[in-house]
Amino acid sequence: MAFAFRVPRRIRFSDCDPAGIVFYPQYFVMFNGLMEDWVDGPLAIGFADLVARRRIGMPTVRLEADFRAVSRFGDDVVLSLEVERLGGKSITLALECRAAGDGELRMAVRQVVVTTSLETHGAIAVPPDLRAAIERLAAA
Amino acid sequence: MAFAFRVPRRIRFSDCDPAGIVFYPQYFVMFNGLMEDWVDGPLAIGFADLVARRRIGMPTVRLEADFRAVSRFGDDVVLSLEVERLGGKSITLALECRAAGDGELRMAVRQVVVTTSLETHGAIAVPPDLRAAIERLAAA
Amino acid sequence: MAFAFRVPRRIRFSDCDPAGIVFYPQYFVMFNGLMEDWVDGPLAIGFADLVARRRIGMPTVRLEADFRAVSRFGDDVVLSLEVERLGGKSITLALECRAAGDGELRMAVRQVVVTTSLETHGAIAVPPDLRAAIERLAAA
Amino acid sequence: MAFAFRVPRRIRFSDCDPAGIVFYPQYFVMFNGLMEDWVDGPLAIGFADLVARRRIGMPTVRLEADFRAVSRFGDDVVLSLEVERLGGKSITLALECRAAGDGELRMAVRQVVVTTSLETHGAIAVPPDLRAAIERLAAA
Repeated sequence: MAFAFRVPRRIRFSDCDPAGIVFYPQYFVMFNGLMEDWVDGPLAIGFADLVARRRIGMPTVRLEADFRAVSRFGDDVVLSLEVERLGGKSITLALECRAAGDGELRMAVRQVVVTTSLETHGAIAVPPDLRAAIERLAAA
Repeated sequence: MAFAFRVPRRIRFSDCDPAGIVFYPQYFVMFNGLMEDWVDGPLAIGFADLVARRRIGMPTVRLEADFRAVSRFGDDVVLSLEVERLGGKSITLALECRAAGDGELRMAVRQVVVTTSLETHGAIAVPPDLRAAIERLAAA
Repeated sequence: MAFAFRVPRRIRFSDCDPAGIVFYPQYFVMFNGLMEDWVDGPLAIGFADLVARRRIGMPTVRLEADFRAVSRFGDDVVLSLEVERLGGKSITLALECRAAGDGELRMAVRQVVVTTSLETHGAIAVPPDLRAAIERLAAA
Repeated sequence: MAFAFRVPRRIRFSDCDPAGIVFYPQYFVMFNGLMEDWVDGPLAIGFADLVARRRIGMPTVRLEADFRAVSRFGDDVVLSLEVERLGGKSITLALECRAAGDGELRMAVRQVVVTTSLETHGAIAVPPDLRAAIERLAAA
């Protein structure tokens, strides 16, 4: 699917470790925020509403990550999200962090999230409005 | 290699998200702590000494994670670490989080870390004392 | 009240910032874990049970913290918790982080937590079993 | 001093705890980010440059925080920072988190930071360019 959602981000003090570079679990916190921004923004579904009122979760079931180059405290990066595959109960995301200037790839993730009932934590079909919003964006 | 290093852990309030389950980046924080405990404990190398005095880092270059079942706030789990492969400049770790009681697999990670100079962030050979300690443990 | 609950802790890589010292919000994460251990351990109330099943929270309403000396990555410290005052709906805690070796005071916190209903987030009376456990410990 | 620096912020999934509200140490992470934005933005000093190149830190030595009302996952808030006092080696900040809509005060912090040498972690005079920038802003 062609649409990529991009958000610029400055690497913060609190993202970094004693080596002065991003502490790698923090990339996943950043990408989780990116997914929230995507659901809130271009998809216009409302992530907090989805989770807190509709009680639908989007947990990760599988991820593969490659770390190609370090990101340092103060670096300006661009985070991007693309839908690679929209399944019945799952969404496969391609996520990247690149340097803002020269576009150097810092790290890339393929992540499979499933939609779940937060009552049972079991997988459920991707809600129709979420599916439609993703398809609309892919066709744009 | 046969040796598995195991540490029990209770899932804390601060590990969990509004769904009441472990926020997945937090698993990687837990496993980072496990790797520190392994370097400090059975390997007897001293992780802080390695990083802060010897200026050698152990960043992740690749990881694959499968999330099989949720861990809830208050759950008792066991984290385990095994060396799957010891390369020239890299160490491949097999990490697991299982329920303390019935051993249910909650999540599993294969993670490749490299040893680096913290001056250049370039990969360097696994230091001889670290290599010897890993081999000694594997033979035990 | 005389009883102090103490837990040793090694300062981890993930606790520290690019300056190589504890990132100060991380002290509060450590102390939150200490309060959990206290409720689970000497008080024998079960923190996860209190929160997840009984739906009673223990949020902070006021805190004062003094940072006296830095804690570095790899330092061994001792965290301590004492009840300073047990009110009708609140508990005032005195928390400290000291060096394990010479007892140097690294930082100290006075923190007021209230017991709340997690349905309304309004303050409620300290539950009788929690109150009794605190009083029993104070008299010991 | 009259100038208040304000940044809007949406409360994220990763800011919240199993009670569905901001995990309180996370407020301090947010305020640390706000201080970075202030040094980078209106003060135009460059926080990463200050820390990583000039090796000057701005650690907290004292803080007092009052938590007045909960912030929930998905809430839109405004974070604000004002300089209350500019000392020889310290800066006293007044920080607030308010609801974006009705301005309800969620929490307020008075925080004293000192400027330090990151070689010794000892306090040093507030650097002249930082002092001048703060005074310029206060007079604006």
